[in-house]
Amino acid sequence: MTEGKTGGRHRERTKVQRLPEKQVTDRAVLNAVLDAALVAHVAVPQEHRLAVIPVGMARDGDRLLIHGSTGSQAFRTLAGGVATCATVTLLDGIVVARSQFESSMHYRCVMLFGSFVPIRDDERAAALAVLTAHLLPGLTGARPPSAKELAATSVLAMPLTEWSLKVSDSAPDDAETDLDRPVWAGVVPLRHTWGTPVPAPDLTTDRPAPAALSTWPEGRA
Amino acid sequence: MTEGKTGGRHRERTKVQRLPEKQVTDRAVLNAVLDAALVAHVAVPQEHRLAVIPVGMARDGDRLLIHGSTGSQAFRTLAGGVATCATVTLLDGIVVARSQFESSMHYRCVMLFGSFVPIRDDERAAALAVLTAHLLPGLTGARPPSAKELAATSVLAMPLTEWSLKVSDSAPDDAETDLDRPVWAGVVPLRHTWGTPVPAPDLTTDRPAPAALSTWPEGRA
Repeated sequence: MTEGKTGGRHRERTKVQRLPEKQVTDRAVLNAVLDAALVAHVAVPQEHRLAVIPVGMARDGDRLLIHGSTGSQAFRTLAGGVATCATVTLLDGIVVARSQFESSMHYRCVMLFGSFVPIRDDERAAALAVLTAHLLPGLTGARPPSAKELAATSVLAMPLTEWSLKVSDSAPDDAETDLDRPVWAGVVPLRHTWGTPVPAPDLTTDRPAPAALSTWPEGRA
Repeated sequence: MTEGKTGGRHRERTKVQRLPEKQVTDRAVLNAVLDAALVAHVAVPQEHRLAVIPVGMARDGDRLLIHGSTGSQAFRTLAGGVATCATVTLLDGIVVARSQFESSMHYRCVMLFGSFVPIRDDERAAALAVLTAHLLPGLTGARPPSAKELAATSVLAMPLTEWSLKVSDSAPDDAETDLDRPVWAGVVPLRHTWGTPVPAPDLTTDRPAPAALSTWPEGRA
């Protein structure tokens, strides 16, 4: 693993405390996790509640982009620059150990700390294009946002500066004394695949699903 | 939809503000979402950071159970009764609309507000059995936790009192003026299935994967 950007000024925030052997500091792995993910879970500390909201996301170089409605209280709070955390989790499987205690999950999890900044009006169309390319890869026929739609869309960015990445991908780690227990142990992979596209009922002409859909990569979640 | 428990004293916390037509108040739907999910994302407000952590979870009647290590700072914070939010999201598909603006996702998302309480020593084994039955359904051969393992495990519960459930499962909702655009529109389902079990390399006898694995329900994530 090459040394990544998990250290720095706030190392106490990004150093993995539990199961530190699972911490990964390779920026390429971080990119791969973010590029496979469709959704981040973001903390939104508001006066009347602390919420965790799922948001559509995309990596844009060295920053994470999220988007939502300008009418969303959560997005207005985040746009104000509050300190927050965006977590991206890909669940890869269930680890079946010979003891319940050692049973666990395979996952890749990024926690990104910092605050979001709003994307300015003149950059919003480009940022939304990055989100669209990430969430709807290869689909180029949809109408781009109008000026009114752009104005109704909040796009926020958080730099990939303070992050922590944990990868659990090992076989069950049973104690020596459990090895002869007469049960199966192993990993059950959790697969994320695309089903058969369902055409909209109001399609005005009979039209096949775009070829790009057949090449959408598996493993997105 | 029957009236659920989304109202009450903190209705301002549980009323869906964005896309309120997607709010579902049927407790049976809430149960179904929680019973399909493996992981919740929980906000952990700590002195040096606000984090969002993924945790293995299970519904136990009218409460949500999560478990982790007693050595985890996050679990110690949550065990202290801090106000938090646990969000469970099942991502069901991508909505491909004729405009980028109307493109979106199919999902079921529960936001549960409140605080966790620690499960007492004398109830912890039973609560862990609920978690094991949920996360590893039908697998009964693993060694139950020892007294030492029980002592190292933090199990926390949050009552299903203040919750908000949002379900997005509609066809693309394109504007009339976009309907004749010469592009496909529809929904691409995201399927979560189990792959072929991978035996642990240190299995001491050749042993088939448990039959229960072949009946694990799809759609868990």
